[in-house]
Amino acid sequence: MAIFFHWDEASTELWQAAFKEAGIEADLRSADNLGNVEDIEYAIVWAAPHGLMGTFPNLKYIFSVGAGVTHITADPDAPLHVPIVRLQDDMLVLDMSCHIIHWVLHFHRYYYRYRQYEADKTWLRHRYPDNSDKRVAIMGLGQTGQDACRRLHDLGFDVTGWARSPKEIPGVRCLHGEDQFAELLAGADILVNLLPLTPQTENILNAQTLAQMPDGAFVINCSRGASINDADLLAALDSGKIEAAALDVFRTEPLPQDDPYWEHPNVFVTPHAAAPSNERSAAGFIVGNIKKCLDGGVPAPIVDLDRGY
Amino acid sequence: MAIFFHWDEASTELWQAAFKEAGIEADLRSADNLGNVEDIEYAIVWAAPHGLMGTFPNLKYIFSVGAGVTHITADPDAPLHVPIVRLQDDMLVLDMSCHIIHWVLHFHRYYYRYRQYEADKTWLRHRYPDNSDKRVAIMGLGQTGQDACRRLHDLGFDVTGWARSPKEIPGVRCLHGEDQFAELLAGADILVNLLPLTPQTENILNAQTLAQMPDGAFVINCSRGASINDADLLAALDSGKIEAAALDVFRTEPLPQDDPYWEHPNVFVTPHAAAPSNERSAAGFIVGNIKKCLDGGVPAPIVDLDRGY
Repeated sequence: MAIFFHWDEASTELWQAAFKEAGIEADLRSADNLGNVEDIEYAIVWAAPHGLMGTFPNLKYIFSVGAGVTHITADPDAPLHVPIVRLQDDMLVLDMSCHIIHWVLHFHRYYYRYRQYEADKTWLRHRYPDNSDKRVAIMGLGQTGQDACRRLHDLGFDVTGWARSPKEIPGVRCLHGEDQFAELLAGADILVNLLPLTPQTENILNAQTLAQMPDGAFVINCSRGASINDADLLAALDSGKIEAAALDVFRTEPLPQDDPYWEHPNVFVTPHAAAPSNERSAAGFIVGNIKKCLDGGVPAPIVDLDRGY
Repeated sequence: MAIFFHWDEASTELWQAAFKEAGIEADLRSADNLGNVEDIEYAIVWAAPHGLMGTFPNLKYIFSVGAGVTHITADPDAPLHVPIVRLQDDMLVLDMSCHIIHWVLHFHRYYYRYRQYEADKTWLRHRYPDNSDKRVAIMGLGQTGQDACRRLHDLGFDVTGWARSPKEIPGVRCLHGEDQFAELLAGADILVNLLPLTPQTENILNAQTLAQMPDGAFVINCSRGASINDADLLAALDSGKIEAAALDVFRTEPLPQDDPYWEHPNVFVTPHAAAPSNERSAAGFIVGNIKKCLDGGVPAPIVDLDRGY
């Protein structure tokens, strides 16, 4: 049994050690050292070269080292009959919540303006609403969205969540489905996007939906860049409809040099850094799942490709 | 009975309404409309003109509209035989915790660097330690310090608190007294100062104490400016010993135009905005305390001037 391993930023030593600790003899193969592809039963990947995995005849499972799987499904030759297991990782959830909390506070408390005032040596304090009067709307109520909702509620914010299907989170108003999307937008002083990218969520933030938000609202995108119609967001920022946006994900990454987001004064660009997969805990999760397979079990969570996550 | 009221940013209507709601006939007197000073039994103040309150012969209590009281005791003619009641306000505690959480995350996750990279159109992601490997040290364990400790612990940080006397906070290592101060400093990747200003805490952060912190540590000061020896902090920032500082309070406020903090690239100046007194909740707290006095009770918390808080 061999494992195809492709993750540019990874340390092979760390993974070898994790397999060894689990008592698994792991024969790790890389793109330039595939050996006999008939041996390969598992793949652990982040953005593997297109066309490669389709040539492994005995592949049983593909493990994504991120919560998203579009890096796999974007390959036109991806072997989509093979179940994909996505990363589920408490550390990743915490990191994402911390990213969201940071930007909610940054916008709510006007720290971005103070940085500008500092350049002008201006001592000017802004009044801000009580946390309980600030409406934070979270799109996407998976493990991460639920955790962010709970933590923002603990900080006293007025939190509303929205998902495809009904959810319940103590202290948080939960909306669902297309019918209630307008209600979410109308009360979104700060809108956080955590939706997985699917045909239904592509460009979900566009001129029409942004127009339904309160004037001077904020957007925090930490899911996928294609959730936003970029030209529409830029227009909303220029008109002041949207006061500022914290964008961690983009249609093309790294963000191209000529992208207008770089220079927009009210856009805060971070380099897909909201919740980078933590190698140590990813290794623990994936090695544990492979051990489960070797013991005759089924790994989890397996992605429903129709649903997209 | 009359009440001396001095708070530049306040709305008299809001206070009149709060007194009326509590069933108190309030005769509010201002600095330029004192009337017969013998009538004045209570004072509600932020930075009142020096010398004034010492002329009220029947003053029973002074209510500070901030948690700190140096704005009162700095008056050389302050009537210090009159008990001072400081503001205790859950909203103020939450606001301060939010300020601290924001800057801890801002530094821990390198958001300040990303802002610089954005100016250079540079896509560069920094690895950061797990929250549990980042040691946050909180100086001062009053109501605010305890709340900040708890919330940072909930975010997974390795939190240590330090106070004059022993404290217990679940999940948080609590040190106390001069003997354990060196231990606090040695483990302070991020140091948060919430100590009240007293002769013992003035310049408590100086060349000698900063040198005991880990290399590349961060300082967050949201208590009083005089807690820091400014020249020593600037030297530590220039040498890289301290990587960055978020300063909300200063020896002189507003911060003078020629102060080097304004231009230092690794100093983040906010205009005493960490937890501005919230007028509505301050009114609720102080009016409630005055009602207690009128009903024959004693207001709280009364400041111990020897201790300084």
